[in-house]
Amino acid sequence: MTRFNKTKQSIWTVENNHITRKKDVLATEEPLEILLRAGEEQRTLAITMRTPGNDYDLAAGFLYNEGIIHSKADFTNMTYCVDGNQQEYNSLRVQLTVDSMPHLHQLERHFFTNSACGVCGTTMLDDLSERNIPTIPAGPVVDPSLITSLPDKLRQSQALFESTGGLHAAALFDLDGNLLALREDVGRHNALDKLIGWGLLNDQLPFHNKVLMVSGRASYELLQKSFVAGVPVFCAVSAPSSLAVNVAERFGMTLIGFLRGNRFNVYTGIERIKSMEPALAN
Amino acid sequence: MTRFNKTKQSIWTVENNHITRKKDVLATEEPLEILLRAGEEQRTLAITMRTPGNDYDLAAGFLYNEGIIHSKADFTNMTYCVDGNQQEYNSLRVQLTVDSMPHLHQLERHFFTNSACGVCGTTMLDDLSERNIPTIPAGPVVDPSLITSLPDKLRQSQALFESTGGLHAAALFDLDGNLLALREDVGRHNALDKLIGWGLLNDQLPFHNKVLMVSGRASYELLQKSFVAGVPVFCAVSAPSSLAVNVAERFGMTLIGFLRGNRFNVYTGIERIKSMEPALAN
Repeated sequence: MTRFNKTKQSIWTVENNHITRKKDVLATEEPLEILLRAGEEQRTLAITMRTPGNDYDLAAGFLYNEGIIHSKADFTNMTYCVDGNQQEYNSLRVQLTVDSMPHLHQLERHFFTNSACGVCGTTMLDDLSERNIPTIPAGPVVDPSLITSLPDKLRQSQALFESTGGLHAAALFDLDGNLLALREDVGRHNALDKLIGWGLLNDQLPFHNKVLMVSGRASYELLQKSFVAGVPVFCAVSAPSSLAVNVAERFGMTLIGFLRGNRFNVYTGIERIKSMEPALAN
Repeated sequence: MTRFNKTKQSIWTVENNHITRKKDVLATEEPLEILLRAGEEQRTLAITMRTPGNDYDLAAGFLYNEGIIHSKADFTNMTYCVDGNQQEYNSLRVQLTVDSMPHLHQLERHFFTNSACGVCGTTMLDDLSERNIPTIPAGPVVDPSLITSLPDKLRQSQALFESTGGLHAAALFDLDGNLLALREDVGRHNALDKLIGWGLLNDQLPFHNKVLMVSGRASYELLQKSFVAGVPVFCAVSAPSSLAVNVAERFGMTLIGFLRGNRFNVYTGIERIKSMEPALAN
């Protein structure tokens, strides 16, 4: 039975060759179609596999990252399509304030370019640079003990993960280490889109003077989205990729990885980490 | 410095407020553009963020899963585009045997449908069903001790993960528990595409009478790709999503999750697990 973000399931547990019947709870995964509407024109912008819940946040965060909306004023409403046929809140329609469909450069570049050969990590960073996204200010300077306190706070608040073991999380903290918002999803990019969409819908963007944490690894995509949202300090429980480090370096973000127990790695932006030993910090 | 699939990086390690400079190794992440060519016509099919290495496998697996190629006979060659401009083997061109560009139904459905509202997990399974992919035969019946032996074998062979901590893996085993092939990538769907592409390029498809294992969670996308490749037994170290279980159930696959130590969960297809207690197995 699927009910919202959890799905009950009968399973078997095999341990030392003994098979036992058991009830289990899974993280729900369902497609979400994001439909864009401008005047009377409508098109499907994306279909993403996501965990239901906070879908408005997800759509807002996705559109913000793509540069299609910049504030709440850029759309008049979001509604689920319930056109009579049996469906379970998997199509969300966003009515833009403008009357004509914006040019969807970025999305189309991803999928249907007919460019000469030449895509690479550096050109992707150049493209990002050309979007004229505001630079991230210097600061804040954060105490290492604040950073190491985050994983426990994240885990304690990850209600869905606790019951299913199957969800990524993205969380935003203030400089006193208070959790401001947390979003979960089977897709890590969706968890972050939801968090950024929460920021947009609640007038919390850009995320300057905040610390962002994700439950898994740090990929290009997560750093790119965080840069667009103005995140100065990005923390991941696991490893970053090479291109994630490149984004952080180029756009002046502090990137922290392998944040576990009382230790972490700093890949870029060490100047935002308060040092007890100033001589070693540079 | 980026060299192929690993990138060296100077980092800082912070532990108990002490900051130390250190050399580290990251998993490389770079875009790969897959260009499709039929006769003189050419188009970009996809740009995926991947770890360089086994790119031919990746392209072959991707095209196979999309139903664009079914065997090695369906393309005449794959070549990197090196058209003079500086780029680092990030565009791969596949020349199809046919003279005209195939209709790319499935890809376009993902991104540019203008359907009425109505997408949901069930309709996705119906779509998959309509592709007339051969059903997966009954069997094999596998001993639980074989299943529990796989994680150690996977980890021992995951060379890149050991040095970077940042990679997903997909591995194929025979019924004696021998590792047949393993592929790694920053993207888990890419790791699986590479493994399936290896199968295509080495005449090992379909993967009947094989056991497939992935290092992370089991999503819809991974189960869908595995079904197309004919995998009867799919094992994941972590949790499956609800829709992953639905795919496995509908298409007769055995889905195993939380495979750790001497225990695992079976979500579907218990008949392929050899039981010491036949009365309990059903």
